Amino acid sequence: MYRVQYSQRGPVPEDVVEVVEFEPPTLQDDQVLVDVLAAPINPSDLLTLTGDYGVLPKLPATAGNEGVGRVRELGPNASSLEQGQTVLLPVGIGTWASHIVAKAPHLIPLPDQADPQQLSMVTVNPPTASLLLSEFVDLGQDDWVIQNAANSGVGGYLIQLAKMRGIRTVNVVRRESAAAELHAMGADVVLTDGDDLPERVHAATDGAAIRLGIDAVGGPATDHLASCLTDGGLVVNYGLMSGEPCHVSPKALVFRDITLKGFWLAHWFQTSSREQQKALYGELTALIASGKLQARVGRTYDVRDIRDAIAEAGKGGRDGKVLIVPKTD
Amino acid sequence: MYRVQYSQRGPVPEDVVEVVEFEPPTLQDDQVLVDVLAAPINPSDLLTLTGDYGVLPKLPATAGNEGVGRVRELGPNASSLEQGQTVLLPVGIGTWASHIVAKAPHLIPLPDQADPQQLSMVTVNPPTASLLLSEFVDLGQDDWVIQNAANSGVGGYLIQLAKMRGIRTVNVVRRESAAAELHAMGADVVLTDGDDLPERVHAATDGAAIRLGIDAVGGPATDHLASCLTDGGLVVNYGLMSGEPCHVSPKALVFRDITLKGFWLAHWFQTSSREQQKALYGELTALIASGKLQARVGRTYDVRDIRDAIAEAGKGGRDGKVLIVPKTD
Repeated sequence: MYRVQYSQRGPVPEDVVEVVEFEPPTLQDDQVLVDVLAAPINPSDLLTLTGDYGVLPKLPATAGNEGVGRVRELGPNASSLEQGQTVLLPVGIGTWASHIVAKAPHLIPLPDQADPQQLSMVTVNPPTASLLLSEFVDLGQDDWVIQNAANSGVGGYLIQLAKMRGIRTVNVVRRESAAAELHAMGADVVLTDGDDLPERVHAATDGAAIRLGIDAVGGPATDHLASCLTDGGLVVNYGLMSGEPCHVSPKALVFRDITLKGFWLAHWFQTSSREQQKALYGELTALIASGKLQARVGRTYDVRDIRDAIAEAGKGGRDGKVLIVPKTD
Repeated sequence: MYRVQYSQRGPVPEDVVEVVEFEPPTLQDDQVLVDVLAAPINPSDLLTLTGDYGVLPKLPATAGNEGVGRVRELGPNASSLEQGQTVLLPVGIGTWASHIVAKAPHLIPLPDQADPQQLSMVTVNPPTASLLLSEFVDLGQDDWVIQNAANSGVGGYLIQLAKMRGIRTVNVVRRESAAAELHAMGADVVLTDGDDLPERVHAATDGAAIRLGIDAVGGPATDHLASCLTDGGLVVNYGLMSGEPCHVSPKALVFRDITLKGFWLAHWFQTSSREQQKALYGELTALIASGKLQARVGRTYDVRDIRDAIAEAGKGGRDGKVLIVPKTD
């Protein structure tokens, strides 16, 4: 049994992790031993390893923030679950591992017939996409939003959720080649970024008044989104992809009443009710389990190949989420 | 009689203006001929000449947005005013002139014993400073705000108004030499800008939670203010001084819930009631007339020397507002 541990943070995330072997534990009370089936590598995981994330665990820590497993063994009082049950792993438990020990009440049962790789991504990106569409601007049928990093995990979920809600999307990408796949997901318009983005958006949307821009890039890309919005519009940043500060022209702020804000899922968890959280995750889990909401999976890696997996996840121009899928040897 | 006219816009504002001589007009109905006593050159005037402002008058136009005059001659039905009365000139009438013809009801009588140069600046900068302090964050006794461009016209008014309201100010400047004068106006803390601004602000304010940052500079200076704010804080930009887009770190936006907005006095005029406007201008005029609210006056120029005046107003590192003070020869 293996897990990925780190005892320091540093600028190259794959350099700070190590694979630690551990013995099958003796389960106490309501503890459960889970075989990890899949655990994604998110941008926030890389920022946690470099020390750039908003909250950082105490060191040493086990890496990985979300994932799905299957119950292998039950402790003497773990009566709420059965062997073989597919479960959602608790946030922050350290999911980059072949096996995890958790308390039974912290494991959420999932439909066994659903794709565990798809379900392993439910905790972070789908709620981010859903809340970006619902928390800031009251969007109705046929309203438009514009997002960049449209080819990212959140970007893909956002396209699909917007489509389901009747909201139209302008999707800004770095590579023209991403367009076909995004259109297949439900994207209305796909454009490459550039200084003339506003003119091209205007032409592609027939001059629609766009009130919400969703930015995960920063730098001049933020200002490009701001330039596409109608007066009084809002840009919400949720990502640090370029490593640059977000730029917004003072002319947009002053003369056109544009606002720039941020969104952090962790903050939403602190400010929303338990009922709101259950409702959102219930909806998203059902959509994923039924195959109506999907993410592209890129390369998958055994937990012992974590350094290669992290290096792959940190690459630009990648298609699909990198997953840890532990080998069952 | 002279006025400053422009028929085109261009990158060098002093190059687009020309001085036009005109004959004393024959006054009709309720028209009044006014000797212009003083008219300031504001940053917004320069942006209007370069074409960078949010609204632009039709060409050709007479330049100048605010000023004070004295009634010289009354039309046959201009019974609401008397010869010799000091009056506030209507916004946007084109105040860079030796004489102006206006309708009597558009001229607001001012106290004759007050300094007309000080009163000539009441329309634009003092309400901007006042509203920046009142419209965005509910600031109480001993709360702190931080502003950059503290040595500007708005900056000086903001220091004085904050002091009157019991609000404490951190004032960011480019030159250490500005500190003494700002302290004399009532500034609590004066610091030069820099990447380590947050640490120095923390030390100077004893770690106070600052919720409002006021930016007229843009570029990295905006991010420096953002870094000094407590979580959930707001940066409001009202100026385009550096010509750079405002920068804000996505970490500040996402992890610390910082918001960036803009303020434009023209927008406030559209959204506030006539009563609110009268109340604000009544308060500010009284404060200026009594000498309790002041701006430093820099160099003054005859209207025929408008090109030199504009060049001076466009210089960085200047102290005091440049005024047009027409010669009475």
